[in-house]
Amino acid sequence: MQYFTDTEEYIDLKEVNRAIETAFADHARGVVQMPPKVYITLPEGDFRTMPAYLPSLSLAGVKVVNVHPGNPAKDLPSVMALTIILDIATGTPVAILNATKLTDIRTGAAGAVAAKYLSPKKEIVLGLIGAGRQAEAQYRAISLELDIYEIKCWSRNSLHAEKFAHAITEHDAHSVPLEKACDCDLLVTTTPSRTPVVRSEWVQEGTHINAIGADAPGKQELDPLLLKRGMVFVDDMSQAVHSGEVNVPINCGIFTPEEIAGTLGEVVIGMKKRKNADQITIFDSTGLAIQDLAIAAIAMRNGRVINLPFP
Amino acid sequence: MQYFTDTEEYIDLKEVNRAIETAFADHARGVVQMPPKVYITLPEGDFRTMPAYLPSLSLAGVKVVNVHPGNPAKDLPSVMALTIILDIATGTPVAILNATKLTDIRTGAAGAVAAKYLSPKKEIVLGLIGAGRQAEAQYRAISLELDIYEIKCWSRNSLHAEKFAHAITEHDAHSVPLEKACDCDLLVTTTPSRTPVVRSEWVQEGTHINAIGADAPGKQELDPLLLKRGMVFVDDMSQAVHSGEVNVPINCGIFTPEEIAGTLGEVVIGMKKRKNADQITIFDSTGLAIQDLAIAAIAMRNGRVINLPFP
Repeated sequence: MQYFTDTEEYIDLKEVNRAIETAFADHARGVVQMPPKVYITLPEGDFRTMPAYLPSLSLAGVKVVNVHPGNPAKDLPSVMALTIILDIATGTPVAILNATKLTDIRTGAAGAVAAKYLSPKKEIVLGLIGAGRQAEAQYRAISLELDIYEIKCWSRNSLHAEKFAHAITEHDAHSVPLEKACDCDLLVTTTPSRTPVVRSEWVQEGTHINAIGADAPGKQELDPLLLKRGMVFVDDMSQAVHSGEVNVPINCGIFTPEEIAGTLGEVVIGMKKRKNADQITIFDSTGLAIQDLAIAAIAMRNGRVINLPFP
Repeated sequence: MQYFTDTEEYIDLKEVNRAIETAFADHARGVVQMPPKVYITLPEGDFRTMPAYLPSLSLAGVKVVNVHPGNPAKDLPSVMALTIILDIATGTPVAILNATKLTDIRTGAAGAVAAKYLSPKKEIVLGLIGAGRQAEAQYRAISLELDIYEIKCWSRNSLHAEKFAHAITEHDAHSVPLEKACDCDLLVTTTPSRTPVVRSEWVQEGTHINAIGADAPGKQELDPLLLKRGMVFVDDMSQAVHSGEVNVPINCGIFTPEEIAGTLGEVVIGMKKRKNADQITIFDSTGLAIQDLAIAAIAMRNGRVINLPFP
């Protein structure tokens, strides 16, 4: 059994985007096993268990990932993860991956795949709501799929947004007021908000939105009117209804699961698409265990390996 | 983060019995979090993901365990397991345990707790149906709770039963025909059977049965008439209905969930008990994630430790 650490250092983000795209296609074709993630509530956060089997990569395993919003005050990441990989022929655990940064990257890659297929423009102004690790992962992955000519960034703490924009050297990036950040071609929300941050009237027709932050019951970032105006694509129907951007509006009766236009996988395989260039489209990402397997396959070729005795 | 291996070498089995007993009591009091285990089917077996939080031990984590019946032909155990332990305050993964042998031991301990509370006799003839690793674990754990004055062992392969009996030096043990093994005070079944092995007419009144083998849909070891004759206690209601000894009879309409007398935890805390000494009682074990946490707490004090970088 091998423990893989620092796996992100040599990873090819373009290769990750393609692997995630393929995983979504497999999901739409129904050739994966992936029960909904299971939540355990802890005193100051939670952890989620995400098992899956991806036959196209002959890969099976489980990611275990926590969310503890108070961790940064303790100098720890809010989100940390391990992935266990099993040999599909014998069930033997063959690898354990430090999957903390891989989680950021594979979530960014899902956003990039959504942007590739759902953004009507290929040259974009990118609006970022939230300026943390996931904002950066989305930006890096999307920049490999679309041409970015401006980045407008907003964070509740404007110093964070300024620092984020300042760190970007490859593109024209700056910190802007919230409403201005929403005036863009591709809007990415990565906050842990439990009340809508983005108001519908701030978003122009034709915008594609990656709604990334909502990944647990009670979380939401978008004005529910945006969901009604736009076409909503989810990563997985049952996970999204349970814990995605749509979860609060569905529980309030403002939105129904029947109004969901389809899954990102269905978009990738051509079953579904945006109706016209003027429509708003929304990708509601909760994070899939098959994304963790797809990136694990790449990550196991990189990083530092420590051999462990097993069984 | 620490990786623990060889954790079973110095483990105190009596201490494990008590820890498992306490975990069952916590389960009955409703002070644990433990969603039903999640199954993923692989080409030649399956794996199960078992997350839980046991507040009384301040312990949270996940066991990942496979079942591959064809593994022994490849010189590998059928069942192998890893347990990940998270710090409950921050969600940080703090330990990974090689839990293969711990799984055997904690399952044996559940059988010992059931025997302690449900066997009407304290001096017993022990009947063992199946002569593998779990038969040994049951025997070792039960021998710490009850006085065994004879062991009758049967296996489909009589050489296995003879070898098993021969290896036991502390007690009078011998290989016997199937029907003879069922004529005992405490009967333990540990086979992977999908059709009943033990016929009702072979079992005398007052026998307590630990039905251990059935842990997946379609598995069963006991004549359903035994369930009708006796009082059935389960480890966890939803897991037992899904995959325990009762799963096939319930799916066939021979038995109903309402006929289950209670849980082992309810027996431990005194809410439920056998009605009289002449009754047959059955403990239907599927294996609980809280058992894995309870034994992990002990195992982390033993064994060899390898320090791993994280995060």
